[in-house]
Amino acid sequence: MNADAITGFGLDNLPYGVDDSGRVVVALGDEVIDLASAEGLDVDPEVWTSGSLNAFMALGPDAWADTRARLQSVATRQPAHARRPRSDVRLVLPWEIGDYTDFYASREHAEAMGRMLRPGDAPLPEAWLHMPLGYHGRAGTVVVSGSRVWRPAGLAPGPDGPQFGPSARLDVEVELGFVVGTTVPRGHTVPARAADHHIFGVVLVNDWSARDIQSLEYRPLGPFLGKSFATSVSPWVVPLAAFDPWRVEGPVQTPEPADYLKTGEPRGLNAELSLSVNGAVISTMSSGGLYWSMAQQLAHLTVNGAGVRAGDLFASGTISGPLAGSEGSLMEKYRGEAWLADGDTITITGWCGERSRGPWISLGEVVGTVVPSI
Amino acid sequence: MNADAITGFGLDNLPYGVDDSGRVVVALGDEVIDLASAEGLDVDPEVWTSGSLNAFMALGPDAWADTRARLQSVATRQPAHARRPRSDVRLVLPWEIGDYTDFYASREHAEAMGRMLRPGDAPLPEAWLHMPLGYHGRAGTVVVSGSRVWRPAGLAPGPDGPQFGPSARLDVEVELGFVVGTTVPRGHTVPARAADHHIFGVVLVNDWSARDIQSLEYRPLGPFLGKSFATSVSPWVVPLAAFDPWRVEGPVQTPEPADYLKTGEPRGLNAELSLSVNGAVISTMSSGGLYWSMAQQLAHLTVNGAGVRAGDLFASGTISGPLAGSEGSLMEKYRGEAWLADGDTITITGWCGERSRGPWISLGEVVGTVVPSI
Repeated sequence: MNADAITGFGLDNLPYGVDDSGRVVVALGDEVIDLASAEGLDVDPEVWTSGSLNAFMALGPDAWADTRARLQSVATRQPAHARRPRSDVRLVLPWEIGDYTDFYASREHAEAMGRMLRPGDAPLPEAWLHMPLGYHGRAGTVVVSGSRVWRPAGLAPGPDGPQFGPSARLDVEVELGFVVGTTVPRGHTVPARAADHHIFGVVLVNDWSARDIQSLEYRPLGPFLGKSFATSVSPWVVPLAAFDPWRVEGPVQTPEPADYLKTGEPRGLNAELSLSVNGAVISTMSSGGLYWSMAQQLAHLTVNGAGVRAGDLFASGTISGPLAGSEGSLMEKYRGEAWLADGDTITITGWCGERSRGPWISLGEVVGTVVPSI
Repeated sequence: MNADAITGFGLDNLPYGVDDSGRVVVALGDEVIDLASAEGLDVDPEVWTSGSLNAFMALGPDAWADTRARLQSVATRQPAHARRPRSDVRLVLPWEIGDYTDFYASREHAEAMGRMLRPGDAPLPEAWLHMPLGYHGRAGTVVVSGSRVWRPAGLAPGPDGPQFGPSARLDVEVELGFVVGTTVPRGHTVPARAADHHIFGVVLVNDWSARDIQSLEYRPLGPFLGKSFATSVSPWVVPLAAFDPWRVEGPVQTPEPADYLKTGEPRGLNAELSLSVNGAVISTMSSGGLYWSMAQQLAHLTVNGAGVRAGDLFASGTISGPLAGSEGSLMEKYRGEAWLADGDTITITGWCGERSRGPWISLGEVVGTVVPSI
């Protein structure tokens, strides 16, 4: 059986990571290839020992495509000194994040939240169908899978008004993120049709959320301390090109989006995701039904001339499906009856294709354990 | 007359900037001192040629205090090769920004906005008196004084629903910002009583705002594209110690803040600010009346364990006073009757003390000119 069918890390995947000595590695089956030691690539080896993927991103989309093509032809023929067992490698946050923005791109999630938080009102916010709503998160607390997550403390609603203490409603959000690979200077825009060219790769995101803190603070400036304590990402950045076979048509968009948000089809990206608490899967969902695509998120963010920097992280917002068992957060699944306890370990796993019979690619996983407030 | 009385850049000020060759300079009267060439300092000269103030920040509060004390004794005796006319120096953004957070700390501003945006409701949001509300802004579009500001385009309310075009309601916000100088790791908190120790210095901030874009997008995730296109800061970072003579008692806080927000007095910082459009002053206001202090903003942001990085920028939110003529935004001053036109130049100036008779210190100015949408 080839590496692909067993691990999801075959030649059609080839995700990038960075190990704890700052070297860029690529996953292949149960091994990693150390790119600074690899043969057959056309990149200055210093790019592979710089501690992050940003130096590689800076080479631009042609170099990403060329390196991927070369790896696909030479990866299985690397010498022993360029290979290590994947289980021996300790992966770190693989790139330097500029700004982090989080969207609200799943219609099923937005409607479910609207029904719970604003019963009686229309479930979708006024502007939701016209543009991908989003907000800026805290880039400095984006952490790699495996990092501890301290239960945040803060002010939350109490019986006699706001009350300080550890969050009693700690939650997760299953999201798909992407890393911008090219810098677009301030004053420039990126139409949705051209946006994929700027996307370096895709990661899994767990946007930890303290619902009680969030509920007190979010009017009128949006989520702040209820989200800013930690955002976990998977250690493997899967090149956008690896998703070509798993593109799908997105949902029909009515009303018709503004010109800058118009894309060709297929605009969707059909990854399967699962959410586990302490090893038990509680939900599975697919990103294929997301209303607003990655390209539309990037187009929206830049339409005002804000530009982006290589390394900027975009996340989709919680991905929930229409059916029971496809909720991307505990709040949606348990409707306020269950939250995270100290010691709980949350795992989000992602893949494209059918794991029982290939081809398929793995997005790896993002794991985090809740520890008590400090 | 000494430099202080004429320019506001005397020995009690000594703000830091970075010139366009990446060298750290300090303003003194009509000159700057090039610190890498200066005599009598106890800092590795490479710190002064690193392109930003971050290397100096990394030396820590004791080094900041020591360098300031040494400069106060040797600044006027520097050799000619370490001095240049201030007007010859082109200043750049003087530090690398991690995260940028913007608060809503002026009660007069929050109440004025509440009355305009939510007539009939209580003007202050539910949580406003309990904690300093804030949100994350876009760090990648913080620009130094003098940078052009392209009029943002985007979706805004139209007669038949959301409509795309250049913003027709472009505004400014007069704010005071501070730069965090020490890194506080994730999982740690900073109580308000200890927060001043972490503040490196103070800058003027113009938080450009497109009110039409903002009004469509801000529910429920807060300001996004209405703010993210540009935030301008003054080029001189005034050390927090320079404000010691201009500390004032803050407004009485009722209800009593949570423990983590409690500070000693005087917690206020009494800078005078003026807002000019095309050279004509339209408003003047003071930061002394801000309800939530800088230390309280830093304590709030870290109470959930988010931590901060050296270089993080905090801004106060619009500073407005209680009287006509003290509005910190056009929206408050002109109530929707006047907005910025292409070609308008906005200048925010700041100082402490009375400029007609010293002592006083200048915060310099932050200038920006609106140019048409691209």
